[in-house]
Amino acid sequence: MSDNKDVSLESLGEFGLIDHLTSQIEIKNESTLKGIGDDAAVLDYKGKQTVVTTDLLLQGIHFDLVYTPLKHLGYKAVMVNLSDVYAMNAIPKQITVSLGLSSKVTLPFVEQLYEGIQLACDKHHVDLIGGDTTTSLTGLTISVTAIGEAGSEDIVYRSGAKPNDLICVTGDLGGAYMGLQVLEREKRVHEGNLKVQPDLSGYDYILERQLKPEARRDLIEFLKEIGVKPTAMIDISDGLSSEILHICKQSNTGCRIYENKIPIDHVTSLMAEEINMNPTIAALNGGEDYELLFTISMADYEKFSKETDLKIYTIGHITEESKGKILVSNSDQEIALQAQGWNMGSHH
Amino acid sequence: MSDNKDVSLESLGEFGLIDHLTSQIEIKNESTLKGIGDDAAVLDYKGKQTVVTTDLLLQGIHFDLVYTPLKHLGYKAVMVNLSDVYAMNAIPKQITVSLGLSSKVTLPFVEQLYEGIQLACDKHHVDLIGGDTTTSLTGLTISVTAIGEAGSEDIVYRSGAKPNDLICVTGDLGGAYMGLQVLEREKRVHEGNLKVQPDLSGYDYILERQLKPEARRDLIEFLKEIGVKPTAMIDISDGLSSEILHICKQSNTGCRIYENKIPIDHVTSLMAEEINMNPTIAALNGGEDYELLFTISMADYEKFSKETDLKIYTIGHITEESKGKILVSNSDQEIALQAQGWNMGSHH
Repeated sequence: MSDNKDVSLESLGEFGLIDHLTSQIEIKNESTLKGIGDDAAVLDYKGKQTVVTTDLLLQGIHFDLVYTPLKHLGYKAVMVNLSDVYAMNAIPKQITVSLGLSSKVTLPFVEQLYEGIQLACDKHHVDLIGGDTTTSLTGLTISVTAIGEAGSEDIVYRSGAKPNDLICVTGDLGGAYMGLQVLEREKRVHEGNLKVQPDLSGYDYILERQLKPEARRDLIEFLKEIGVKPTAMIDISDGLSSEILHICKQSNTGCRIYENKIPIDHVTSLMAEEINMNPTIAALNGGEDYELLFTISMADYEKFSKETDLKIYTIGHITEESKGKILVSNSDQEIALQAQGWNMGSHH
Repeated sequence: MSDNKDVSLESLGEFGLIDHLTSQIEIKNESTLKGIGDDAAVLDYKGKQTVVTTDLLLQGIHFDLVYTPLKHLGYKAVMVNLSDVYAMNAIPKQITVSLGLSSKVTLPFVEQLYEGIQLACDKHHVDLIGGDTTTSLTGLTISVTAIGEAGSEDIVYRSGAKPNDLICVTGDLGGAYMGLQVLEREKRVHEGNLKVQPDLSGYDYILERQLKPEARRDLIEFLKEIGVKPTAMIDISDGLSSEILHICKQSNTGCRIYENKIPIDHVTSLMAEEINMNPTIAALNGGEDYELLFTISMADYEKFSKETDLKIYTIGHITEESKGKILVSNSDQEIALQAQGWNMGSHH
């Protein structure tokens, strides 16, 4: 896809561009009857329930093209949405992608973005079924809508947590935020605002957490395998603190989580130390980790003893609403959990 | 909703804003199991097919806030998507709406936009089931995705037209484009670039065509009533010429349409005359009329004799592909139909 450097988008036209970008798309799911190419896509779900989620990503708010490779950006734009589908205990099947493009962008620019979108779709067996492509006067705009399916008994809402349920989380937290700090520092160096060139090597893990997050399909498959349906579930896009508060609010419960149980990778801790930040703060408020936070009844706990490569941590438990939403710190202090200040749409 | 002039969006927070805007939403459709408030909405279609369509509207490209009332803008953003659902011969059931908002906008600004969105939903019996709200550095962004349903036998694609099928269109064409010319002229007056103040009265019809288009649910209902399934259908968003070419391309046919059969309102003609433009050009290339263009087999023609308030015009017929895509002009000349120059995403 690299001989197109001189092709202008205007010479292709909107329909030419869409044809070009979507010509190699093969339909992966039986429920996709018709994808791109008509007024709307056509889906067919026989008796299954359908979930729908959407996210809008804007240049300068959600991504910085200075340090975000376009392929990664396309990949991440899809992952963010698939993550929401998995958080319903559903399996994503289709996405639509709308792009607002500056008239200055070149075909290879859009191709790289699409390569990432395609890669994400392939990896998660999802069909790209439609979208809209338009000129933008003001930078890149990406809007993704994902559609998934689940058996009607399987869908997990945020509202089902009960006192004594265990609170679990996958993977590790705070890494995406710390990766962002590395990138922002790098950007300042290139802008000449820092004297010393920092060394990017050794930060690979948290850079990948920021630039190429992976939605946790593996947890959903594992839960099915061991026969556990969480009582509540949410994905971690805004930070652990904000997400656990959502579950408590919608379930009318309190919670008690333990700082020393929150999984944090050592590279995350290392970078936090470098910039004099408490890594727990990054985990609580950093966001963009796209791990899954879920609650299970005590009775299901032993089913998690089955061997898996998937990292799942129990970080606390649900309490009566009157007990409050509490973080027990490493020094055994009880701290009320708070949603971070609103930075509308900015997870940074 | 007018005592909120001093409420800043930041003090509400994203979740506060969404709660505020969506608190009065009542679910209208049985297929909507869960709307706003979790990671994704949940739908249930028992054996029906689902259609999905999406549009991205960007400030400066698709709308100009100088002359577009926010309520109308919200209404139109929804209509554009519902129109695509109807063009599949399906009935819209749910929408998601994502908004990118400048941090400077006030609560009443967003409320007016939402009033229009709600009005469109109410009128078309559609549930608003989710979305995303984010800060924009660069003006207003609106992304709408619509979901609809149809019996599996009922869906109409662009690809089913056959030689000798009649080509029909609803309503009248070119009005939305001429309404835009009135508004643009008015804007130039306010900017002091014109000496004489033009009179807006008398232009109501075409202003409404531009600012408050109505998706043609009535045609879909009428087709059901008379038992006709079109062989192909598309909505007119980019102009008659572009749309008929889509049908011909996907159906591998030619077409023959007659200039003197194209329905044009007298106010459209009046304005066209004022600015020395051929109104047929506005109908062919103007776009944004959101009427439906469809083809029917000759055998179904007599069914259209049933009385209706709906205006349906036969403007030509489908031919073999080798015959070309022809407009027969008022002076009996044969002109090859062409897609207008690409103005990516701009229907103006």
